[in-house]
Amino acid sequence: MVLITSIENKIVKEILEIKRKGKKSKSPLLFFEGYRLVEDILKSGAKVEKLIIREGDLGKYRHIIQDKNYVIVTDKVFKEISGTVNSQGIGLLAYKPLPPELNLGTLALAVDGVQDPGNLGTIIRTAVAAGVNSLFLLKGTVDLYNEKVLRSTMGALYKIPIYLDMEIEDLKEIIDKYSLTPVKTSVHGEYLYNSIPKGKYLVFVGNEGNGLSQRVENLPGITVKIPLYGDIESLNVAVATGIVLYGIRG
Amino acid sequence: MVLITSIENKIVKEILEIKRKGKKSKSPLLFFEGYRLVEDILKSGAKVEKLIIREGDLGKYRHIIQDKNYVIVTDKVFKEISGTVNSQGIGLLAYKPLPPELNLGTLALAVDGVQDPGNLGTIIRTAVAAGVNSLFLLKGTVDLYNEKVLRSTMGALYKIPIYLDMEIEDLKEIIDKYSLTPVKTSVHGEYLYNSIPKGKYLVFVGNEGNGLSQRVENLPGITVKIPLYGDIESLNVAVATGIVLYGIRG
Repeated sequence: MVLITSIENKIVKEILEIKRKGKKSKSPLLFFEGYRLVEDILKSGAKVEKLIIREGDLGKYRHIIQDKNYVIVTDKVFKEISGTVNSQGIGLLAYKPLPPELNLGTLALAVDGVQDPGNLGTIIRTAVAAGVNSLFLLKGTVDLYNEKVLRSTMGALYKIPIYLDMEIEDLKEIIDKYSLTPVKTSVHGEYLYNSIPKGKYLVFVGNEGNGLSQRVENLPGITVKIPLYGDIESLNVAVATGIVLYGIRG
Repeated sequence: MVLITSIENKIVKEILEIKRKGKKSKSPLLFFEGYRLVEDILKSGAKVEKLIIREGDLGKYRHIIQDKNYVIVTDKVFKEISGTVNSQGIGLLAYKPLPPELNLGTLALAVDGVQDPGNLGTIIRTAVAAGVNSLFLLKGTVDLYNEKVLRSTMGALYKIPIYLDMEIEDLKEIIDKYSLTPVKTSVHGEYLYNSIPKGKYLVFVGNEGNGLSQRVENLPGITVKIPLYGDIESLNVAVATGIVLYGIRG
């Protein structure tokens, strides 16, 4: 059993770097914190490197760590690496999802500039639920490896191929190569979210305040509008994503 | 122009009480903080009592306060009443939505034990968007007047009649009186979220972890299942609400 007492420890320094740099970090690992999230990741099929347990909480987590690689850290050290005020004293290092093989089915999703970490996490869960085959994050979208995004995906990022930092040109190539029809989600446009014929689609969802960027608006394809029956300007983008994806699935 | 310098001031004490007690507060007012939210509330049709501006930010908000009742507070006082770390120095007191007249159309929604404030706020926005006529919050659901709920509704709570602290018996009466069919949303049950015939429905959505409570499961009516095509246990409850409501609208 290893007890880490210093924030100069190699593992601690790696965790702090991962958290600070997000997708710019060179580490192959991601750090997840909290009991529920650790459970989700353990179930997700992620390749787990190590569990991190706070000294005083070892007894509480015996059932989790039994056959796993783990280290114990002091209270002081855990406080340094913890992102939450009321920490549960458990964290986990797991390898990033593998660079995916492009394997497009009939439904793909592209996220164009979503900024709220919770929204991106919920969009990823929704995409997995709706059976999306590939998820593309356009440049300008919040960092997938942001702590709050990881938390709100609840492990779903290991359940779907995700492509980061996509340029619109990359997507144009994919659209052509795989004969996808772009579906632009908007509050303008035609009302046909539930009458889309069978086909191979790449759905675009946009920024919380501004919607889709011009680069996406300029794409050919169809525009789908979710009708707003009440006196309100917009839907939450994750909710809109769910309605459109399930509308297309039928 | 009034400058408030003490947290013993009547208005300041009222704001603190409203924030601390939530729906248990006897005040007829709610407190909203932040530029975007204040704008949403001003546009929402809420009856506004007073704007609260931080001393140093007066110049910045001249365009908003021109014809309105406002007070200025010192930095120190604003820090006391502010719920956010990086406050924008603007807040607003508005009257709670009026006790609604029961006026049921064809689509009502009941929330059964949702705990996350952001989820409840997003559910309310989604309900307004989908044209829900009445929203019922069953006992055990997070406080509507919780600061984070108010923030995430973005003013939508003034756009829909909302009934708090409902007991299942209250809803049974309403179901009978208005001949509504209960729709229980679940991951079990039949798959028919998009093939529901025209009718008058009361849709139930449940707690994030546990779904609907037994009191709701025992109701007659239909059970709607949203299919999960990917390897995931559940959808976010606000996303699920959007899919079911729009599925019923067709």
